[in-house]
Amino acid sequence: MSSVLTSRKDDYAQWYNDIVLKGGLADYSAVRGCMVIKPHGYALWENMQHVLDKMFKDTGHQNAYFPLFIPKSFLSKEAAHVEGFAKECAVVTHYRLKNDPNGGGVIVDPEAKLEEELIVRPTSETIIWSTYKNWVQSYRDLPLLINQWANVVRWEMRTRLFLRTAEFLWQEGHTAHATREEAIEETRKMLDVYATFAEEYMAVPVIRGVKTANERFAGAEDTYCIEALMQDGKALQAGTSHFLGQNFAKAFDVQFSNKENKMDYVWATSWGVSTRLVGALVMAHSDDNGLVLPPRLAPLQVVIVPIYNKDMEARKRIDDTAATIMKELKAKGISVKYDNDDNTRPGWKFAEYELKGIPVRIAMGPRDLENGQAEVARRDTKEKASYQLEGLAASIEQLLADIQQQMFERALKFRDENITKVDSWDDFVKVLDEKAGFISAHWDGTPETEEKIKEMTKATIRCIPLNNEQEAGKCVLTGNASSQRVLFARAY
Amino acid sequence: MSSVLTSRKDDYAQWYNDIVLKGGLADYSAVRGCMVIKPHGYALWENMQHVLDKMFKDTGHQNAYFPLFIPKSFLSKEAAHVEGFAKECAVVTHYRLKNDPNGGGVIVDPEAKLEEELIVRPTSETIIWSTYKNWVQSYRDLPLLINQWANVVRWEMRTRLFLRTAEFLWQEGHTAHATREEAIEETRKMLDVYATFAEEYMAVPVIRGVKTANERFAGAEDTYCIEALMQDGKALQAGTSHFLGQNFAKAFDVQFSNKENKMDYVWATSWGVSTRLVGALVMAHSDDNGLVLPPRLAPLQVVIVPIYNKDMEARKRIDDTAATIMKELKAKGISVKYDNDDNTRPGWKFAEYELKGIPVRIAMGPRDLENGQAEVARRDTKEKASYQLEGLAASIEQLLADIQQQMFERALKFRDENITKVDSWDDFVKVLDEKAGFISAHWDGTPETEEKIKEMTKATIRCIPLNNEQEAGKCVLTGNASSQRVLFARAY
Repeated sequence: MSSVLTSRKDDYAQWYNDIVLKGGLADYSAVRGCMVIKPHGYALWENMQHVLDKMFKDTGHQNAYFPLFIPKSFLSKEAAHVEGFAKECAVVTHYRLKNDPNGGGVIVDPEAKLEEELIVRPTSETIIWSTYKNWVQSYRDLPLLINQWANVVRWEMRTRLFLRTAEFLWQEGHTAHATREEAIEETRKMLDVYATFAEEYMAVPVIRGVKTANERFAGAEDTYCIEALMQDGKALQAGTSHFLGQNFAKAFDVQFSNKENKMDYVWATSWGVSTRLVGALVMAHSDDNGLVLPPRLAPLQVVIVPIYNKDMEARKRIDDTAATIMKELKAKGISVKYDNDDNTRPGWKFAEYELKGIPVRIAMGPRDLENGQAEVARRDTKEKASYQLEGLAASIEQLLADIQQQMFERALKFRDENITKVDSWDDFVKVLDEKAGFISAHWDGTPETEEKIKEMTKATIRCIPLNNEQEAGKCVLTGNASSQRVLFARAY
Repeated sequence: MSSVLTSRKDDYAQWYNDIVLKGGLADYSAVRGCMVIKPHGYALWENMQHVLDKMFKDTGHQNAYFPLFIPKSFLSKEAAHVEGFAKECAVVTHYRLKNDPNGGGVIVDPEAKLEEELIVRPTSETIIWSTYKNWVQSYRDLPLLINQWANVVRWEMRTRLFLRTAEFLWQEGHTAHATREEAIEETRKMLDVYATFAEEYMAVPVIRGVKTANERFAGAEDTYCIEALMQDGKALQAGTSHFLGQNFAKAFDVQFSNKENKMDYVWATSWGVSTRLVGALVMAHSDDNGLVLPPRLAPLQVVIVPIYNKDMEARKRIDDTAATIMKELKAKGISVKYDNDDNTRPGWKFAEYELKGIPVRIAMGPRDLENGQAEVARRDTKEKASYQLEGLAASIEQLLADIQQQMFERALKFRDENITKVDSWDDFVKVLDEKAGFISAHWDGTPETEEKIKEMTKATIRCIPLNNEQEAGKCVLTGNASSQRVLFARAY
């Protein structure tokens, strides 16, 4: 199996591409920058969706759906937003094709030019706030707590499967509130939802923080984020939650009469996570043999592989035992597949399920059954052990919980070992190049210094951690006074 | 309440628009032909999705996701397909905006013209079959049983909320098979899935049939459909399942080596239903007071409204009783809301929940409790009755099942009463204008006659029912020989 994937050590970027393609998560498409999400990858995304959707609904949100297209003029209504998003985007200019009179197939009908061009949404603040204007008159209409599951398009020049694609799938929450405080509370609440999801389901520890002005969402007053660390020491922004102030309400004139019967602009938030999380999940846990998926999100949690010999009665005993185990596992809500395909050998199956990241594999041959046992292999550590058939379903349930917990602990240990305090510029550069990970360093608080560090090292300020310790120090680049350390890293 | 909606009798089309807008299902948007699906409407669609998705998975299908964009040249590869779909569609010609040097906001950057235009998918056969080419080499790779939940765009000139919009949400199944027989079996199987869903969940009876050549999907060898009847006597195509033969495999050169080790083209099907089903659901059951939703799809099944007086102890008793009932209902998997909002009166709430189509309303005042009773109103018939609190949850569970069943039976009775056998052209026109509904009439089997009837009356052949009775007769228009009756109707 070692020949199937490039090893992480040899070429981390190539390893990632190999695992996404060969692990059946995604494929390239005929359209530049757009990928095909294959069934195994989509099933992972669906599991993420189900958990997140429930968390959103449990916190009072409802789903809705807004148009794919945004009139070009809408983007211009919020000054910062247009700078951030009206650049690389897909522009619809015509609404009809026709047969080429010169016989060259179909061509764009020049008669069917739109009066105003439509942009394929890169994010939906503008189209949603143009709608909210009609939905909000009084404080009684607030809050609006709405989420949308949708595709969006940003015409990225350099793309990578899941991490950065022209089209991607995501959810975007857009809420409207009567007060500043309530909107900020919502922004923070959804950040916590994302952090809980990342840690408890993806088994990926995250740092909650706030972005600097340079890294803020175009149109936000504050952008909160969760930042994760990948195995190669690069950071990955796994989710963002924006406090938008009254910017979009002012841009689209969304006013309401408050309890004092005075008109005021509505306060806004938006927050989103995307199919990028699939890439983060792969990069955080997988190894040179393939995917390693946390049990709580794995599309398939357990596979049972029979080890047949030529004795047909022994076969039947294996099949019967497997059927019993499957029934017991399913009763516990555990997904399980019995792979008794005669056309492939057990060894091939083992490698295939390792590649696909199935958390637990049970193998059973005649000898195992005679001993009242089965061989159980866990994907994360690749440890194998003989388990008693008696009470096997309960043991597997516990094992899945252990794997989930231990995957998180390993990732947490790795992350914590890769946050390095640095107090000089020499150390900053050295740690960045030799160890990578997060660098905790003093910064003088200016966008100029941040920009300079980015130009010199490609490292950015990932975030100012929430509840950050206040500590007097000197900026690692300029030596100017600083009141706290911030986290730098090179990032995806 | 009667003043909120236009009545069906006065103006059916206006009634439909009123109910969609005021029932909270959808809203118009700033983009021509695109609608906003509001939370109540989206929750209905989500419930439909959950049921259908499970039915697809139970029949062996997996979900995946393919790009939003289709290179223009792909549409031309299948001759019939391009005629049907390369007409009214959204065309992306550029990938960047820039600031107008003359200060006119953002403009399309003429430098950023795509070499080949991209079409926003009107349906995904072409992009999917261009991908399947890489996935299929041998019969062992077949069948591919894949479904996609997605948005699609068809630049319709006349749009109606849910029924016909430029952008709509749908699922599209795309399967690949080794044999013709297997593909036809799949086509029929998915038609049955749709019919089961329509009848058992939407409570809408449907006729399963096959389309005539004129009405066939562009690129299909056969299009199967389910046809439903709306309250105004117009038909509505609620779902289609296409046997595509080897047309797309040939267009995209998708060949496989079969069991005899010979190369052959792959056989294809595609099948889809869309947010149009929400429109069908509304039109099939609702009344002049608002939505009437079948319990199995209603976003909220039961609402409890307290009838408070000024006695605070009585209030508490009502609240406590409601809490107990809610707990019991939830334990049965029934969704329930307690609306004890003090700012609105019970009468207002009753009207609101009627408008929204909540199947069952429970009202409880101090007097009811003293008698150990509650007042239960069912939305479909508007009947009210006193129910014993003892065992109320079980009674409500049964009531919901009864409502579901009786909604279907009423719709079935209406549908069957509105299939009229007609044997002369005079009767055809008369029935169409005075009674509407389905007309069962002989047709000479030619596209010309079908087209002529459509021009003269706007009625189309909705389908040739499956297992249609064979019966010699004369075409209702031409008098030419016919071997069977087909179903005509005016349609949405």
